[in-house]
Amino acid sequence: MAGQATPDPEALLATLARLTQERIAPRAAHYDALATNPVESWQDLWRAGFLAMTIPRAYGGLELDMPTYVRAIETLAQGCANTAMTVHMHATVHRFIAALGTPQQQARYFAETVEAGKLFGSWGSEPAVSLSRTFLVETTIRAVPGGYRIDGVKHFCTMQGGAAYYLVWCALDGRPEMDQALLQALVPADAPGMRCDGRWDPLGMRATYSPSVVFDHCLVPADAVLGPPGKATRLGLVEVFALGYAAIYLGIAQSALDFATQYCQQRVFRPENVPIAHDPAVQRHIAAMAIPLEAARLLLYEAARQWEHAEVAQRGVLANKAKYLATQVGLQVTTTAMQVVGGRSALKDLPVERAYRDLRTCTLMPPTVDRMLEVVGKAKLGVAASMFQFGAAAPPA
Amino acid sequence: MAGQATPDPEALLATLARLTQERIAPRAAHYDALATNPVESWQDLWRAGFLAMTIPRAYGGLELDMPTYVRAIETLAQGCANTAMTVHMHATVHRFIAALGTPQQQARYFAETVEAGKLFGSWGSEPAVSLSRTFLVETTIRAVPGGYRIDGVKHFCTMQGGAAYYLVWCALDGRPEMDQALLQALVPADAPGMRCDGRWDPLGMRATYSPSVVFDHCLVPADAVLGPPGKATRLGLVEVFALGYAAIYLGIAQSALDFATQYCQQRVFRPENVPIAHDPAVQRHIAAMAIPLEAARLLLYEAARQWEHAEVAQRGVLANKAKYLATQVGLQVTTTAMQVVGGRSALKDLPVERAYRDLRTCTLMPPTVDRMLEVVGKAKLGVAASMFQFGAAAPPA
Amino acid sequence: MAGQATPDPEALLATLARLTQERIAPRAAHYDALATNPVESWQDLWRAGFLAMTIPRAYGGLELDMPTYVRAIETLAQGCANTAMTVHMHATVHRFIAALGTPQQQARYFAETVEAGKLFGSWGSEPAVSLSRTFLVETTIRAVPGGYRIDGVKHFCTMQGGAAYYLVWCALDGRPEMDQALLQALVPADAPGMRCDGRWDPLGMRATYSPSVVFDHCLVPADAVLGPPGKATRLGLVEVFALGYAAIYLGIAQSALDFATQYCQQRVFRPENVPIAHDPAVQRHIAAMAIPLEAARLLLYEAARQWEHAEVAQRGVLANKAKYLATQVGLQVTTTAMQVVGGRSALKDLPVERAYRDLRTCTLMPPTVDRMLEVVGKAKLGVAASMFQFGAAAPPA
Amino acid sequence: MAGQATPDPEALLATLARLTQERIAPRAAHYDALATNPVESWQDLWRAGFLAMTIPRAYGGLELDMPTYVRAIETLAQGCANTAMTVHMHATVHRFIAALGTPQQQARYFAETVEAGKLFGSWGSEPAVSLSRTFLVETTIRAVPGGYRIDGVKHFCTMQGGAAYYLVWCALDGRPEMDQALLQALVPADAPGMRCDGRWDPLGMRATYSPSVVFDHCLVPADAVLGPPGKATRLGLVEVFALGYAAIYLGIAQSALDFATQYCQQRVFRPENVPIAHDPAVQRHIAAMAIPLEAARLLLYEAARQWEHAEVAQRGVLANKAKYLATQVGLQVTTTAMQVVGGRSALKDLPVERAYRDLRTCTLMPPTVDRMLEVVGKAKLGVAASMFQFGAAAPPA
Repeated sequence: MAGQATPDPEALLATLARLTQERIAPRAAHYDALATNPVESWQDLWRAGFLAMTIPRAYGGLELDMPTYVRAIETLAQGCANTAMTVHMHATVHRFIAALGTPQQQARYFAETVEAGKLFGSWGSEPAVSLSRTFLVETTIRAVPGGYRIDGVKHFCTMQGGAAYYLVWCALDGRPEMDQALLQALVPADAPGMRCDGRWDPLGMRATYSPSVVFDHCLVPADAVLGPPGKATRLGLVEVFALGYAAIYLGIAQSALDFATQYCQQRVFRPENVPIAHDPAVQRHIAAMAIPLEAARLLLYEAARQWEHAEVAQRGVLANKAKYLATQVGLQVTTTAMQVVGGRSALKDLPVERAYRDLRTCTLMPPTVDRMLEVVGKAKLGVAASMFQFGAAAPPA
Repeated sequence: MAGQATPDPEALLATLARLTQERIAPRAAHYDALATNPVESWQDLWRAGFLAMTIPRAYGGLELDMPTYVRAIETLAQGCANTAMTVHMHATVHRFIAALGTPQQQARYFAETVEAGKLFGSWGSEPAVSLSRTFLVETTIRAVPGGYRIDGVKHFCTMQGGAAYYLVWCALDGRPEMDQALLQALVPADAPGMRCDGRWDPLGMRATYSPSVVFDHCLVPADAVLGPPGKATRLGLVEVFALGYAAIYLGIAQSALDFATQYCQQRVFRPENVPIAHDPAVQRHIAAMAIPLEAARLLLYEAARQWEHAEVAQRGVLANKAKYLATQVGLQVTTTAMQVVGGRSALKDLPVERAYRDLRTCTLMPPTVDRMLEVVGKAKLGVAASMFQFGAAAPPA
Repeated sequence: MAGQATPDPEALLATLARLTQERIAPRAAHYDALATNPVESWQDLWRAGFLAMTIPRAYGGLELDMPTYVRAIETLAQGCANTAMTVHMHATVHRFIAALGTPQQQARYFAETVEAGKLFGSWGSEPAVSLSRTFLVETTIRAVPGGYRIDGVKHFCTMQGGAAYYLVWCALDGRPEMDQALLQALVPADAPGMRCDGRWDPLGMRATYSPSVVFDHCLVPADAVLGPPGKATRLGLVEVFALGYAAIYLGIAQSALDFATQYCQQRVFRPENVPIAHDPAVQRHIAAMAIPLEAARLLLYEAARQWEHAEVAQRGVLANKAKYLATQVGLQVTTTAMQVVGGRSALKDLPVERAYRDLRTCTLMPPTVDRMLEVVGKAKLGVAASMFQFGAAAPPA
Repeated sequence: MAGQATPDPEALLATLARLTQERIAPRAAHYDALATNPVESWQDLWRAGFLAMTIPRAYGGLELDMPTYVRAIETLAQGCANTAMTVHMHATVHRFIAALGTPQQQARYFAETVEAGKLFGSWGSEPAVSLSRTFLVETTIRAVPGGYRIDGVKHFCTMQGGAAYYLVWCALDGRPEMDQALLQALVPADAPGMRCDGRWDPLGMRATYSPSVVFDHCLVPADAVLGPPGKATRLGLVEVFALGYAAIYLGIAQSALDFATQYCQQRVFRPENVPIAHDPAVQRHIAAMAIPLEAARLLLYEAARQWEHAEVAQRGVLANKAKYLATQVGLQVTTTAMQVVGGRSALKDLPVERAYRDLRTCTLMPPTVDRMLEVVGKAKLGVAASMFQFGAAAPPA
């Protein structure tokens, strides 16, 4: 996989689709029930090179372009939303490393994944702030002898215990504005000073395993920190999260629609002697799911297509457009899929209730619907705006 | 509670609201997690007389009129959807006993509830038919020496193991049309010939505990059977199920809205210094939930008000109108409530994700959205129709 | 009709329904085409006493309570939206006179209607302000020898030329805050200093004839002014406009639904040999219009029922709830009615396209959807608010 | 413009956009008010070659591929929906001539447009049938000495009096099934035996001028008939109508959104001192229109992209997908645009009420929403279906 030849995107995606269908999808219900990370699915992906989708080819990665990347994430989500979400987080951390890391940092961290299949998490959210309202981080990082010290609380810490490193979003102590203060540190899973009570029992996206973590005098070496303070906000990378979420929503929705379609093709109620697929009302429901889903997918792909040449603010608009429509369509498709399948769709024997839970859960990730519409509307109206409103960091304690 | 004086509806409802808030609501998450019947909540309701809401006063019941009844069920659902649903099932079985039972049957069965707090379930659904499409029952009942023998499969057998009697909907062997064949038997929980594998792991309404049950030469005494065959379809009682479902949907939706409202009144994100209730976007979301919910409630109450004087076909229309709007509004309210609360709404620490699961699950109960609209539309268009399309029973084996 | 006996509301409404059906509805298309006031329909209403619906019985009026009033306006709107809107404006001016007028003013103005069938208009809107955003009036009124002088511009001047008096909403010159400055003058149609270019060519509500009017040194006698400055904002009367709008929306929507229903009962397409009313898809469309419409009506009636005992702020909430839902449902019903009727619904031979135009037009009247939701949401969230945000009047020129 | 070099699509579309903005859009309100064909706009289009978009290059036409064609129609619709619709009808008749005509017919008819700027209409609809329900034509054509005789009634006869030829859809007398009977004749505007009462007063699309026409012993020469009977149903050309409609809907919706956007950028309400574009609620409304509109456009373009290589049945699916989403999005965008602009949007001074009327009117053109969903749903479910259900022609009189 050592980056010489350019991989063929269609062949890669076909391989991933097969892997997803044969090995990743069958495990999805199990990880959901246990609320534990999809470790075996990660292993399969690693062996096939798909943990390195955003690692530069020079470091042994696939270095997928954005259109191929979103299709890969969408493909994964059709089989297991949790695998898709964790891999998307992981791959996006790689993007930060590629953009902000020194050659030494890149060599070291990328090798962890390419050679050892290690996962990277990203912990940005905090209980007292809303990134959709104000981009504000209260977890502080300050230089201390031998490195940095981190203090604060993060919640929704995806892959806690499962990843080898967590990209922890901190505010450099003493800097007042987030676009000057944001500093991300790659905290190893075994760093001292992290505390987690292991509480994690959510509606969906359960296998992301995302409990809260307290940082209390957590010490990391100096080279765990990426780039100069604030720079991470100006790369057009924070925006990648939302773009990938859109791919996940559409993958989940597609899986629900596919299941409902198959179900209707097979389900016969007595005394009828044909499947309910022959009922015009059922046909209309299927179409009313499929058409908006196809349009939302085209919008996502178009956003990905424009991505490379888009400036930071424009990326915010592209990501928000894709995520907004995927949210609306995803919610509609998953609830309609349950209605079409009927009472049995509520049973965990069928996959559609998991799609319903996962979709509602992951569409709660920032930015909110209100915020997405605001960002896109500002752009259409020519009112200056970035995707994020940077807040002032808390004054030093 | 012995039926002399007419109970004051407002006082009864106030008592029930207090009981629900203080004792029933606090247990709801527990029963949901365990997927077991809300036995202690039933006990509390029994002691306060509320397991006898539809038992005639002559037999020691409350004999609530329909407007009071739906408010009572709605009140219960605000605290625990599962308690509301099981009690609604139970109370509706009492209605069948009151309408079809002999004085001896009434005396005997009502006493089981009034004096001993026993619950009654109702098992109508079957895996191979859809009551929304054709009212067809394939479970057979036939007269045998000493009583009747029941054979068939029921699914969604609510309160299996928890109720003392199950009203099992059967087709009298040999009768071709359901409106001549339907025969309901009150099968005691310990009747021989019932088999249940105990599989029950659904999205929501988990504490209804509703696994599948196989009847294999299940024998019941002759006086376990209610009324002449087919009569149960002509009472305007089957229609009560749907009316009560509407009350449950609205109760659940109200609980989600109430929680979201309180949350917004208290939630402050830094660096803001006021609760998000002051955000106009939040205010609009709250109103966009509250207004349709209030209208759907008025429609339900109006349906209940007209109930007593409505003929069977008209009751079908009233119930379907109420259930349709409660379904649409309930789905919208619960998904918006999660959006307004944000990411934390997905955690089981907060009650809103349970409302989301319960609402989606119980709105799958028949009739379907398509069927409800069809029934109401036929009535508006003057096209003759009843709520149910009676199918022909399966030919005798 | 001289106010001794309490009129029976049901009898009155039956009379009005008959009058509407027989005489008012048949003229609606004609007035719409000509965009002229429904003068003959007003005359019919006057002769039957319905121009005096809100005039106290002591002055020869019907003095309808609010529940009867909204049903009357809704009834009118089923036949002719323009008649309903103009009469609602007129009747609401009567409410202001009853609340703010001296006995002499009441005697004089009420007699104009009761005895001579004169209409009263209300002109509040102005081109440079939005009452939904800020309750601000820039038209000034100032005391001059012999009375008052009015200067400014009003738009949407309903019944210009058709009414005998226009209640012109002004700001008393020199007062900074609208809740201290609002002063309403009853300007006679022949007052000097009013100028109208007669431009009026709108989508719908055409027969309200509502062009712009310029006031340039318009002089009125001292007794044309109602009450002390600002008091009109504190009566809970401004809120009546929106409540009546809701009644009009629902009346229009009902007429569209009724027509679509009849059309489907009669329309047969070859080679089918039954009306399309037998098509389940058509039945569902009819029900999906009828059910929300019925619920919105119940919400309106409930708001009217609570009106008398509601404080000013609560009236704002009641009116906004009713108007919001009537807006949403009305838009949905009228567009669906056209879809159900099909291509011919666009022809002016059928009444449904007029309902479509009228509904969209009159739902643009303030407050806006955003503002309505905000007001209701604030109330639910306990955030202090009135229906209007009073702005500061413009400084004297 | 004589077909040697392949025209550059982007340059052509830019020319058309300029022409539309400078000359066609400014006349749109005028033609709408008069309900007369946009004759001068046609002339401008002719001079620039755009009346020959679907005429083969060998005959002097542009022979646009489908992706370019739908963009051209969409571009026109942004300026004048009526010009777009009439030109789309006209251009689609050219497609039938190219597919079914003899070389002599092609040479003759194409020259009429290329050299003389003549328009071609297409008259399919009839008052007693619904093409969405059953593809049935009752207008008969029969061979008579010297040619053919046509008898029947057509309605919605677009460009009656304005076009030089009308493609009249007939059933060949005596053939029982439409896919064997359909025969299209190019009837010259001055053919004897056509009668039109000139009644045409619709909600929107007024300048299509589409009254009803009676054919009573209408005689046409033998070479006015295109191709063998029934063949027109098997070309994948009937499906082009719906695809073009989708382009028109999106063009209209875009014009409404563009106007609303500009309006919000400029509109300031006192006492505010910034345009309402700065209001987050306004921003959200703009985005909630723009995002689905962009997605619907991508779906249309994708359908056009797949068109050439799609079989007939697949073209029906592609067209219905595009038309369905354009309908839903178009209705939402135009009604929201009015809401955002507010009360003044109802005045004919502003273009948005015309967009509202035109959109609702042209979305009523077949197939209906129900039928579109059914066709797409059948395809997804693998239930065999074509876009049309061919009915049996009426028995000979």
